Formats: sequence, C-alpha cells, structure tokens
Amino acid sequence: MLSQYYAPTRVTFGEGAEMKVADELAADGAAKVLIHYGGSSAEKSGLLSKVRELLKNKGIAFVELGGVKPNPRLSLVRKAIEIGKKENVDYILAVGGGSVIDSAKAIGYGLSNSGDVWDFYCGKRVPQDTVKVGVILTLSATGSEMSDSSVITNDEDGWLKRGCNSNVCRPAFALLDPCLTYTLPDYQIEVGTVDIMMHTIERWFHSGNGIDITDDLAAALIKNVKEKGLECLKDRNSYEAHASLMWASSLSHNGLMALGNDQRGDWACHQLEHELSGMFDIAHGAGLAIIFPAWSKYVYKTNPERFAKLGRLVFGIKEEGEKGAEKTIEEFIAYFKKLNMPTSLADADIILSDSQMEELLDKATFYGKRTLGAFKILEREDMRAIYELAK
Amino acid sequence: MLSQYYAPTRVTFGEGAEMKVADELAADGAAKVLIHYGGSSAEKSGLLSKVRELLKNKGIAFVELGGVKPNPRLSLVRKAIEIGKKENVDYILAVGGGSVIDSAKAIGYGLSNSGDVWDFYCGKRVPQDTVKVGVILTLSATGSEMSDSSVITNDEDGWLKRGCNSNVCRPAFALLDPCLTYTLPDYQIEVGTVDIMMHTIERWFHSGNGIDITDDLAAALIKNVKEKGLECLKDRNSYEAHASLMWASSLSHNGLMALGNDQRGDWACHQLEHELSGMFDIAHGAGLAIIFPAWSKYVYKTNPERFAKLGRLVFGIKEEGEKGAEKTIEEFIAYFKKLNMPTSLADADIILSDSQMEELLDKATFYGKRTLGAFKILEREDMRAIYELAK
Repeated sequence: MLSQYYAPTRVTFGEGAEMKVADELAADGAAKVLIHYGGSSAEKSGLLSKVRELLKNKGIAFVELGGVKPNPRLSLVRKAIEIGKKENVDYILAVGGGSVIDSAKAIGYGLSNSGDVWDFYCGKRVPQDTVKVGVILTLSATGSEMSDSSVITNDEDGWLKRGCNSNVCRPAFALLDPCLTYTLPDYQIEVGTVDIMMHTIERWFHSGNGIDITDDLAAALIKNVKEKGLECLKDRNSYEAHASLMWASSLSHNGLMALGNDQRGDWACHQLEHELSGMFDIAHGAGLAIIFPAWSKYVYKTNPERFAKLGRLVFGIKEEGEKGAEKTIEEFIAYFKKLNMPTSLADADIILSDSQMEELLDKATFYGKRTLGAFKILEREDMRAIYELAK
Repeated sequence: MLSQYYAPTRVTFGEGAEMKVADELAADGAAKVLIHYGGSSAEKSGLLSKVRELLKNKGIAFVELGGVKPNPRLSLVRKAIEIGKKENVDYILAVGGGSVIDSAKAIGYGLSNSGDVWDFYCGKRVPQDTVKVGVILTLSATGSEMSDSSVITNDEDGWLKRGCNSNVCRPAFALLDPCLTYTLPDYQIEVGTVDIMMHTIERWFHSGNGIDITDDLAAALIKNVKEKGLECLKDRNSYEAHASLMWASSLSHNGLMALGNDQRGDWACHQLEHELSGMFDIAHGAGLAIIFPAWSKYVYKTNPERFAKLGRLVFGIKEEGEKGAEKTIEEFIAYFKKLNMPTSLADADIILSDSQMEELLDKATFYGKRTLGAFKILEREDMRAIYELAK
C-alpha cells in the first residue's frame, strides 16, 4: 500500500510570528484580502488592529468578515463568498482557531469553483482549486492550519456536520505564535488538548501494517501533549508548554502521523462525534472525550495489542494483550477527567431520546449508505452500541 | 526567535512507489527530463529500464546522464548543465541517493540561473530559481530528498566541498520505496545510519532555547534509527526496518527537527567532516562517526545536561550533568563501533601531516573568515583541538 505525505504550508513559529503577515501575503502577490475571524477576542486583544496596520503599511487592500462560531456554519460561508465575489477577494486570511480556518477553506472553495459550495461537503463534487488561505493561529487544537480538512455544519438544512478533505485547501502559510494562546479560557485548552491527541490516535488505529518510526513519533507526540495540556492549565505564561502544544496541534493533523500506514486511520470516533456535536452543539474535543472511551471498549478485542502498545509508550503500562488494552482505556479516561472533560453523555447532560438515537444513526451512516472505521468496520448496529456505551 | 518549517515535497511512500514517476512528472507538466544517476546498480537492478518505459508510455521525452560519484563533483554538474541547455531540459529526475540528488539540485540551479553555478556554493550569490527536481530514492542516508541542502565538491580547484542551502531546491516530489534498499552493501547502510542520526543530532545541539515537542520527536527518531540501522543489517528483507530507516532519513533533514529552536542547529561536525572527506574522499557517514566523538569530548562542558538529556532519552542513561554527558558520548562511540564505523582517524587509516592539518583549518575557517558551530562557537584553534582529539 502506498501512502502520501504532502504538507506544503510555510510555517513561521515563535513569539511575534504574526508580525510576518503582510510579508507572507505579499510573497504570494495578494491584492485583496478577506480577513476572517470569530468573536470579539481577536479585536479586544489588539491582534486585528495589528493585522490591519501591517496590511495597510504594505499597501494590501482588505475587507473583513467576523462572526465565525464553533462548528462553523454554512450560512456565514455563503455570506463570505458573496462578499468575496463582489470585492474581488484573491486571498483569505483566517485569524483564529480551527473553526475560522475551516470556514476560510470553505470560502476559498466557493470563490474558486462554480456551483454550490455544499456539494464539496456532501460528497457530490471534488474541489479543483481554491483561493489561497493564510492563517494566524490563536488556538491550539484542530491542526487545520496545515491539514487538508475542513468541517462545516449545514445550519440551513438539518444541522448536518460534514467534512471535505483535499490537498487543495492546505493553507499557503501559517503564523504560529504560542503567546497568542496564553489568554485562552481553560476550557479551550482542555478541549484543544483532547482534539490534538485524537488526531494522532485516529491515525494510530488502522488495520493492516504500519511502520515503527511513525508509531514512535506518534507516541512521543501524544505523550508530550498529555503533559503539555496540563502544564498550560497550570502555568498560563509558560512559553515552552504553549509552544509544544501549538506545534503538536499542527503535526497531529498534517498527515505525518499516518505515513507508512495502510490507511489514513480509523476516524470512526470523529464521524460519530460530528453527528453528536452537529446535533447538540457541544465542543468537538468534549465530544471526542465522550466517544473515544465508548468506541475503545467496543472495538479493543479486534486487536488488543495495538491498544496495549499505545498504553506502553504513552502511559508506561506494563501489561500486554487484553489486560494492557483495558488499562490503556482506563488511563485515557482518567486523563480526560483530569482535563475536566465529560467522558459520557451523562457528564455532558445529554440524554438521547430514541428518535434522536435513530437520527444520529441515520446521519452517521449517510442514511444507510456507508460504514465507518478501519480498525474495525462499523455497521449501523455497531454505532448504536457505541452510542449506548457512551450514555 | 522565529523558526521556519517548509517541506513542500510531495512524498509517495511504500513498495512500488517508483511506479508513480511518470504520473508525478506529468502532474508538473514535464516535457523533457534529464534522468540523472550514479553507477551501474540502478541499471543492473532494472530500475532505470522501468523508469525509461514508464516515461515512454506517458510520452515524456528524456535524456540521461549517469556517473555521479560519492561526494558529487562540480565537473559532472557542469557537463549536465551543458547537456540540459542543449536539450531544453525542464525537469531533472534523480535516481539514486544523496550524491545524485545533490548533483541534480546543482544542475537545477545551473539551468535556471545565469553565471557560474559554483558561485552558489562558495557563497558569492544566492540562487533565485531552479529547474524542478524529482527523486526516486535508492539509499536512506542524506535526507536530500526533502532537504534544502546540496553539497558539491569542486574537483577542478582544490577539492573544496561546499554546501548551498535554499528552499528553492527542495525536490518537487520524492518516491520512497524501502524495497529498493534491500540489496545495498552493508557499508552503505552503516554510513547511512550515522548520517541520518547526525542530521538530528546537529539540530539537537543549539544554543538558547528549544521546545520539548521537538526534543521528544528528535529523541524518538534517533532511538528508532539506532535500532533500525542494526535491524536492516541483520535482516536485509525486513520491509519494516528498511521503511523506518528510509522515512527517518527524510524527516531527519527536512527541518522538522529544528522547529522551535533559536538556530537551525550546530553543524560544526558537518563542516569539519566536509573538509575531511573533501580531502580524503571517505564516506560522509564514516567521517561523522570520527568527528562527532571528538567534537563532543571538546564541547560537552559548555552544557553537559544537553548531552545527558539526549543520552537519557535515547540510551536510557540515568546519570545527569557531566557524568551523564560522558556516558552519552561513550554510548554513541560504542554504537558507531557496532555499526563497524571508524571512530578515529587512525581507524580510517588517515594520518594527518602538519601541512594537511593547516590545509584543513584553512578550508574549515574559509581562510580565517568564519567560525563554526552554535552550541559552542569554534575558532581555528578549537577546530585544531577537535581534529587532534580525532586522531
């Protein structure tokens, strides 16, 4: 089996990286930039006014659109595409975290390709091109700053949450300044830490063969994130801890952690979580902390040693086979609890009604059209069992 | 301090990756390719005839130039540039290891920039562009398949060995098939293993601050390479061992292992070794196995804990401070010996005359114009002490 690694994003890392924004845009010949962002924090912190000033000084024109929400919405993407077309935008600058970047990627698709942008998310068409996206990252979590992935929630029709993966959308540049994450609320660090871990964990669980160098790097990353997530919470001014967490977020989702694997990974937890957070609008990281333990308990007997190896390298677990697997799952649950994460639906005050369960399963299976997973292939009834275990 | 990561090479990895060569060339619109290679092994193995057939079937024209030697020579680069200009070559395909790729990069510079190509290597000018280079890798060692670096030996004038670093020359694509390395002579695996380790070790030793995620990934890589190098020698048909070593070679030199560091690394060992192998034509990896122990003994007191941390993560050394540093150096020497590497000049049957010593120091200092290193800045007399320790 062949596997690919393609991560062309120009990364600038360190304190003050955001000051390079005009240079990076100019290097790509940007003439009219859409500055895309979320809520008021980027304004309050002075980051946006810094960006505006740098662009003005460099003679780069821009328009702005804020208001991106977690689980970014199709309606705002459509609005941005309309503005972009009217204003002849040729570059999108995402100032924010994964939601803003994912929204920017969708706008990029919409500006470069004719037809309905949602087509790319519901699998009807494949994007051929994009308006370039650049990133100033303010949140370590999704890895969207280097990834090929974008997830959008259709708030116009059934709150479907769907992803589109394409090398086309990998950001042209990413400015990573760990200091920008010092002032995040604890909760953002907590859900971000789970999200980062899970991008590598999803790649860890594939069927077939992998290579040890990728396993060793993956385990080193997860172990590092496990420590740095807690360190960031303890010391909100530790450059080192915030820097490690930020760079781990990019590496966890840029493809490195699947190189040499027969597949890109399992991704069932992500799909099951997408339906959940699409319906209940909980944070992605919190949803993953609920789903991963349930998924693990349901699938680990397929290959207990794979779980045990992860536990050995990350938590120093000595047991092998099923015992080792069970211990590994316990350790992850205990760790998520330390991060103040829910590890069950009840913890998140979600009570699934029977009709909601069926709706989740309808959406997760694309109304009977797909299975999920690679480590273990999941049919509709397997998914039901996992949601049940998550209660 | 800001640091950069930029590794745009499209990597295809796995058994049979070389079969994608025509697709990759076609994706970049190659019209006339120079196939560049070394000795007879690529011909004998059938790899070159496979490549010719794939290009013919895809309707891609090509010319060929073989004969690249270890420590690739300027005279052959000039000859290739002449052929390339005459034949309107718009793509260079390197089929081989680091010497072939480095030679291809120099040819790319020469075809895209006017004036003398050696200017880029002796630091007179900076290359602005290149004819694209693609790679079919047959040897895990230099990491040139993703790196920004190319080293050429001037066989026309004093056997100076000089490097040119530029993002411009990073290969457009790299096809990595571990199976192509099954039939290498043991010696190639041995020197390759040292070379791979040293690219990360050079980045490990910087002054100033780094971040733990990079340290943890670097240590995981070195530890993996330490094991896989020996495994490859023991089992010349182990896909896993050859695959891990091959991917480690790319990651060790693509910039990943310096992200977050204040500098790109130390690189004094490489510079001191370049002068040595430029003069005595020994293998780069063997030269590094001689220089690194001498350099380490000379510099470790600058920051013993940095050495001890490496030893702790890679060899499980318990001691801290100077004791830990000394133990770490001993472990590396013992490991190099296990790889049948020389760890002194005497081991390599090199006896430095007084005039040769002065010539080495003249070249290493650019005739008094530069110091070397970052972990500890080396003046001419420091370099002399290190070559003395290497005897």
